[in-house]
Amino acid sequence: MARPRPLSGYPELGPAQRIVEQQVLDTLRGVFELHGFTGIETRAVEPLSQLLRKGEIDKEVYVVRRLHEDPRSGGVPAAEEDGAAAAADVLALHFDLTVPFARYVVENAGTLQFPFKRYQLQKVWRGERPQEGRYREFLQADIDVVGRDVLPSHYEAEMAAVMSEALTALPLPALRMQVNNRKLIEGFYRGVGAADTAAVMRAVDKLDKVGPDGVRAELTAAAGLSEEQADACLALAGLSGDDPTVLDRVRALGVSDPLLEEGIADLGAVLEATASLTGERFSVVADLSVARGLDYYTGTVYETRMSGFESLGSICSGGRYDALASDGRSTFPGVGISFGVTRALVPLLGRGLLRASRSTPTCVLVALVDEEGRAAARRTAAALRARGIAAEVHPDAAKFGKQIRFAERRGIPFVWFPGAADGGGDQVRDIRSGEQVDAVADAWAPPEQDLRPRVVAG
Amino acid sequence: MARPRPLSGYPELGPAQRIVEQQVLDTLRGVFELHGFTGIETRAVEPLSQLLRKGEIDKEVYVVRRLHEDPRSGGVPAAEEDGAAAAADVLALHFDLTVPFARYVVENAGTLQFPFKRYQLQKVWRGERPQEGRYREFLQADIDVVGRDVLPSHYEAEMAAVMSEALTALPLPALRMQVNNRKLIEGFYRGVGAADTAAVMRAVDKLDKVGPDGVRAELTAAAGLSEEQADACLALAGLSGDDPTVLDRVRALGVSDPLLEEGIADLGAVLEATASLTGERFSVVADLSVARGLDYYTGTVYETRMSGFESLGSICSGGRYDALASDGRSTFPGVGISFGVTRALVPLLGRGLLRASRSTPTCVLVALVDEEGRAAARRTAAALRARGIAAEVHPDAAKFGKQIRFAERRGIPFVWFPGAADGGGDQVRDIRSGEQVDAVADAWAPPEQDLRPRVVAG
Repeated sequence: MARPRPLSGYPELGPAQRIVEQQVLDTLRGVFELHGFTGIETRAVEPLSQLLRKGEIDKEVYVVRRLHEDPRSGGVPAAEEDGAAAAADVLALHFDLTVPFARYVVENAGTLQFPFKRYQLQKVWRGERPQEGRYREFLQADIDVVGRDVLPSHYEAEMAAVMSEALTALPLPALRMQVNNRKLIEGFYRGVGAADTAAVMRAVDKLDKVGPDGVRAELTAAAGLSEEQADACLALAGLSGDDPTVLDRVRALGVSDPLLEEGIADLGAVLEATASLTGERFSVVADLSVARGLDYYTGTVYETRMSGFESLGSICSGGRYDALASDGRSTFPGVGISFGVTRALVPLLGRGLLRASRSTPTCVLVALVDEEGRAAARRTAAALRARGIAAEVHPDAAKFGKQIRFAERRGIPFVWFPGAADGGGDQVRDIRSGEQVDAVADAWAPPEQDLRPRVVAG
Repeated sequence: MARPRPLSGYPELGPAQRIVEQQVLDTLRGVFELHGFTGIETRAVEPLSQLLRKGEIDKEVYVVRRLHEDPRSGGVPAAEEDGAAAAADVLALHFDLTVPFARYVVENAGTLQFPFKRYQLQKVWRGERPQEGRYREFLQADIDVVGRDVLPSHYEAEMAAVMSEALTALPLPALRMQVNNRKLIEGFYRGVGAADTAAVMRAVDKLDKVGPDGVRAELTAAAGLSEEQADACLALAGLSGDDPTVLDRVRALGVSDPLLEEGIADLGAVLEATASLTGERFSVVADLSVARGLDYYTGTVYETRMSGFESLGSICSGGRYDALASDGRSTFPGVGISFGVTRALVPLLGRGLLRASRSTPTCVLVALVDEEGRAAARRTAAALRARGIAAEVHPDAAKFGKQIRFAERRGIPFVWFPGAADGGGDQVRDIRSGEQVDAVADAWAPPEQDLRPRVVAG
């Protein structure tokens, strides 16, 4: 084949980059499991009709079809089935992990235990125009908890705390998680007398794009608010802060509504549950302008910005949803957060801001003196592996200089020389320092930090 | 939504089953990394034209297309582009991990270090008729090593040894890996005077289906062999055994050919490298009837049967390939083996032959006495997690009986009772034995075997 070229929007990582991604995934999984989340996977495809019911992303969906038994048009599948009938059976690649999870919950409601906490690390596909931070295939790390018919609001604080703990454990630039509450803003808009609170939310959601004057114009025109009402809504959207006094400032706006009070309490609980995690590299702030586009959120909503990479938008988002999943008898309210692993990592890897200390798991390269020594070299490698030290034998009995370069090119820190000691024993060399010492394969161990590839940031 | 039903051919695992699968993947990955294999992932899609060049599986390929900007026919994509032009850009889901890996190697040849050893744990898709052991979406675990222009044959023995070690570490029924060598059989066929050795291989490959007489008929008719030549080929196919004497029996057939000798030496090396792994639950045997259907194998070939599940066919297969990947200047010979994780596990999980000891990572459920106690309960859980013990707080302050049932239903072994001791200290109960003891969250630890869910076989 001619040398193939990368497909735009389908990032593939080199071996060392992939080691970084895998360690990130291991860290996330470790935190999620410590908190009692079970890892599930759903199939890559869902019925197209189900996907199109959720969100406004019909242009981004990839349809999947078996290549026809009798492929015409150069292998392109024909599509002459009766439209509506065929559409019912058409499958498409999932574009997120929330919709498949909601389907999984309803499908398996008879056997799952509720509240059900799961994490899910899987790729998703969207036919978007590729750009930095926007890919056609990308990896998401989701946590959700769903109840049957009820789900206590304390989970909204706990999900923020779990994801905060996971993100804090990653070697990322400083992160800022912005939280808000749909009940709070809807109650507030109701309290100021807005008839169409959804229209107000849509207008306020454009604050970043059109500025306060643009929002005020839309609030008074499209949403039918008075200037005074519009000012109150803009005053709310202008509030943010990382401690509970921000909630006092919400109350100081003088609007009264029971739903608003519920929302204030829930938002306060989220700030409290995450307060201990806030530091230089991570913070959780209440931001009363955050609304999230998706219709199905009904309580806490989350967004997260990465310092220096604000143009990526939110890399970790989610919220509470009360009506996403239902089988007619029961509903399954939930709350979840999704971290865009590819969206956050690929820009960092591409700029060399995250690296692995080597491009292979191998810690020790066992040098090969001659072909007759291969069996002994294999036993040495096996003895190291038996104690958890990744080891491989050099491919052939090349000159030692070449064997050492084999290790250098991959970042393997140690080379083992059979029979190199005066008495015929083995020696091992740290090829970074050049230090070479007597060693026995059944006993020698590398320093802890060299056992596995390390992820280096910055 | 109405309760959705499973999609045939797309197995999804329940939480406990998924724990089993994850532990299997962790074990595989652990063994592969100890041997210096780097984990890579390739995108799920490849150009259709590339996939169709490899193997005879055009009927099984899934084509992937963006849903049209202006979806007609109820959302079904129209396919009226000019056939040939469109086909060049059409993407399809990969049906194995070997073809994408070959493409990845050629694409990245400028930056990879050779020989390059990688493992790859990913899903693949085939539009086959679903049945036990045959799925439309399934997980494969592949290891391959590729060289640039050359690859020493000792890797064929090492790949068998690595995969054998990995499979031996899994909680599967007894496995039997059958190895053969394409050079050996091709040299043998040449040595007996066959003009069309490929035709002989195709005929012998049908031994299981049509029996010796059927093969003999095809050898004399289609492949043009004499009765005597056909008998020699059948005699070879009848040989099998797990020690090097099987190679003496090959030689005793009296056929002489240099390629045959090379093949005998390579097959002997595979038997030698895997001899120490053979036991009650795992064996490697030379089976001179194994050929593997795929054209691209050029040396050692591997197949693996699972005891009691022979109808699944081979669950772990592969071989040496010399010409799968090339960029015109260099070729990239390789050898690889692919373990069908889903194919092997789903039948075992479905029959309850593999189970997890619990359906959640949680080891300790912290009981909630009343809502005022939630903050303290969270601190207790956090203290346990800080020492690697997965813990969660009960959703609400229900009666203790209900909280204990919460743990029982999920298989959580321990329930933590704040302030249950006479002096006001905490206690922890092993709900399996009922034993309840005083405990401090900063010091107590469960028995090692309860820390994580265990996989139980049989």
